[in-house]
Amino acid sequence: MKQSPFERAEILCVGTELLIGDIVNTNAAYLSRRLAALGIGVYRQAVVGDNPERLAEDVRTALSRADLVLMSGGLGPTYDDLTKETVARVFGRGMQMHTPSLERIEAYFAATGRTMTENNKKQAMMPKGAIVFPNDYGTAPALALENERGQVVVMLPGPPRELEPLFREQVEPYLKKRCVSILVSRNLHIIGMGESAVENELPKELKDSENPTVAPYCVPGEVRLRVTAKASCESQATALCDGMVEQLLALPIGEFVYGIDVPDAAHALVGALAERGLTMATAESCTGGLIAKKLTDVAGCSSVVAGGAVTYQTREKTRILGVDEALIEAHTVVSDSVARDMAVKALSAFDVDLAIATTGYAGPGGGTETDPVGTVYVAVATKDRVASERLSLGARRDRAYIREVASVRAIAMALGVLRGNL
Amino acid sequence: MKQSPFERAEILCVGTELLIGDIVNTNAAYLSRRLAALGIGVYRQAVVGDNPERLAEDVRTALSRADLVLMSGGLGPTYDDLTKETVARVFGRGMQMHTPSLERIEAYFAATGRTMTENNKKQAMMPKGAIVFPNDYGTAPALALENERGQVVVMLPGPPRELEPLFREQVEPYLKKRCVSILVSRNLHIIGMGESAVENELPKELKDSENPTVAPYCVPGEVRLRVTAKASCESQATALCDGMVEQLLALPIGEFVYGIDVPDAAHALVGALAERGLTMATAESCTGGLIAKKLTDVAGCSSVVAGGAVTYQTREKTRILGVDEALIEAHTVVSDSVARDMAVKALSAFDVDLAIATTGYAGPGGGTETDPVGTVYVAVATKDRVASERLSLGARRDRAYIREVASVRAIAMALGVLRGNL
Repeated sequence: MKQSPFERAEILCVGTELLIGDIVNTNAAYLSRRLAALGIGVYRQAVVGDNPERLAEDVRTALSRADLVLMSGGLGPTYDDLTKETVARVFGRGMQMHTPSLERIEAYFAATGRTMTENNKKQAMMPKGAIVFPNDYGTAPALALENERGQVVVMLPGPPRELEPLFREQVEPYLKKRCVSILVSRNLHIIGMGESAVENELPKELKDSENPTVAPYCVPGEVRLRVTAKASCESQATALCDGMVEQLLALPIGEFVYGIDVPDAAHALVGALAERGLTMATAESCTGGLIAKKLTDVAGCSSVVAGGAVTYQTREKTRILGVDEALIEAHTVVSDSVARDMAVKALSAFDVDLAIATTGYAGPGGGTETDPVGTVYVAVATKDRVASERLSLGARRDRAYIREVASVRAIAMALGVLRGNL
Repeated sequence: MKQSPFERAEILCVGTELLIGDIVNTNAAYLSRRLAALGIGVYRQAVVGDNPERLAEDVRTALSRADLVLMSGGLGPTYDDLTKETVARVFGRGMQMHTPSLERIEAYFAATGRTMTENNKKQAMMPKGAIVFPNDYGTAPALALENERGQVVVMLPGPPRELEPLFREQVEPYLKKRCVSILVSRNLHIIGMGESAVENELPKELKDSENPTVAPYCVPGEVRLRVTAKASCESQATALCDGMVEQLLALPIGEFVYGIDVPDAAHALVGALAERGLTMATAESCTGGLIAKKLTDVAGCSSVVAGGAVTYQTREKTRILGVDEALIEAHTVVSDSVARDMAVKALSAFDVDLAIATTGYAGPGGGTETDPVGTVYVAVATKDRVASERLSLGARRDRAYIREVASVRAIAMALGVLRGNL
């Protein structure tokens, strides 16, 4: 069996729910990112429905062009889950019961106190010769089939919370055996500059660099620079990559980099507080718990995050936090003064070292002439000082965007205060 | 030129940034949803890179199978934007300058005070015979080409904030001229049963029904049944659809349906409270603000959601909410007693009609022998009663999943208490 490196990959996602637009296809983006990091080029992504003829046609088409096909979906227990059977047919293999998988599925149902049904047993049937990857995150095992030409089809369960860890923990090591170049990436996370401004600041020779490459991309409220270096061994690729990162940090944009390879600003903030042995709390109005949620997403945050108050209705700001009613009357509840007072009061209510507060108009309703929808006041208080800022996130943006960006910017402000940059 | 209804559509998205996984493909989901509502079946979605040969190949393949092809991307000003030129070549048409488009682009740059560059003029070049849809949201016009067989290729700009309004406002009316059947869908939202259990409960004749169809799919913590009916006019399709929905609600699974066509359980709960003129608050530990966030995602929630407390560290449960320390000492902070007390105390702290509380082990750390990671106690308190439940979400599930499902289940419990089902 040929064991040459994979040259071309295609991604084929199975599921009628994708074709009717019920679900956004995050699996294709995730798998593409992981393959890119392995140095395997993705030339096509496709989605096909739960139809055996069209599925077989697309598997054959992919195998006519690529040596690696990653598939997701169609491994469930229901009558329209047909991925394994179809790929087995294309490969000319029969199906058989895989006993270790059957035992795992039975144990899973027993442990969660649910009743296993007959159709769950289907999930333990495998094409002959399949390499089976047990699934710790759900019932359907993932699997891979290789043919005599060295082509590989990998089949993964559809739900992203199963597919992503399964791919990372089991499928990637399996694929790595056939990869010859190592890619190392670092992501620089930037808050406070827009994408075109960041791109303008990059000298031409860095923008045009072929190895490492520097690629800007956006997530709400942030710009990120992905630096990717390729070499035949990891230490060389790492050195190349880190060298470019140093060059970027030395530029003026370096000041706006809040973290490197951190999942997000919340992880950076919790880490920075933990390093310093400090604690924090939140006082949220328009962001409604989103900042607290982001901070408590961070595993191990309980030594740092005391808690927070979501004082959504105006009176709760006074009842729960003790915000001065006179300030609310004088400046309205969406104001710099009220944001600052919320932060200061949260500091003592929770007896912490740092507090973040937000108050604003997330829309679609609300807003005034001077403070339209999209106006959010954020404040950060420590024992020594209070910092605050008025954000103008755009009246045409939707509620979810305004809440998301306000949360990210507030967390970044707290990082800035903590590090003495603000 | 034939003007029969579109039978089969394919979606083809152009862009190397999609193939390297930088961007999640929301356009495919959006266009698929809109086509589904028009009664046009989508049989494939595909993504191809900015490569003229592969792009031409994929356009030809789509036209060999479908009578409508919706494309996105590749309409920009740069050298790798090739969609129009490639489709024109496949159709055997030349390109020509479309003066109204050129004038619009020049005016757009003048109005925003930016300098137009030579390559922007490319965006006004059109295949001969193209139907042009002017773009109020960006520079590149959308367009459609029809051939003598009645096949249509529509080309839209890549950015979703341009594609979505353009499609809705201009392309849909154009497509509607060739649609004869109307589809009506209803989504039944189910909490408390797994997907295979729901499928087991469906009688064969409903599962196999061809019109309306009944299709199960999942989102974390929920199972949904989409019922879709097709007819030549809307009232007929609606009647067919509603008839099937009634049949489903009459089955045992009907009890587990918390809402129909609601965005999620939080929307259903806020709506149910608003109908009754009631208010609510949250007291969250392990879910860390996620329940408050979901509730405040609902536009117009401010008449219903007073706020919430995120009492993440143990002492905050007593300091902020007034939870009885003796209960914490006797039962530990993750217990049914503490969850119930948190809910009761939140009821009075915020002076509301209903309160939701959570306390649990979201992992990866924590847990005990009797209450491993994934154990979450949820409680709902009203002036009349307190309901509570111990959830067992699986030690192997990740933190995000445990928090997400605990939040959804807690909100569903509140709905059940409110409606008198629990």
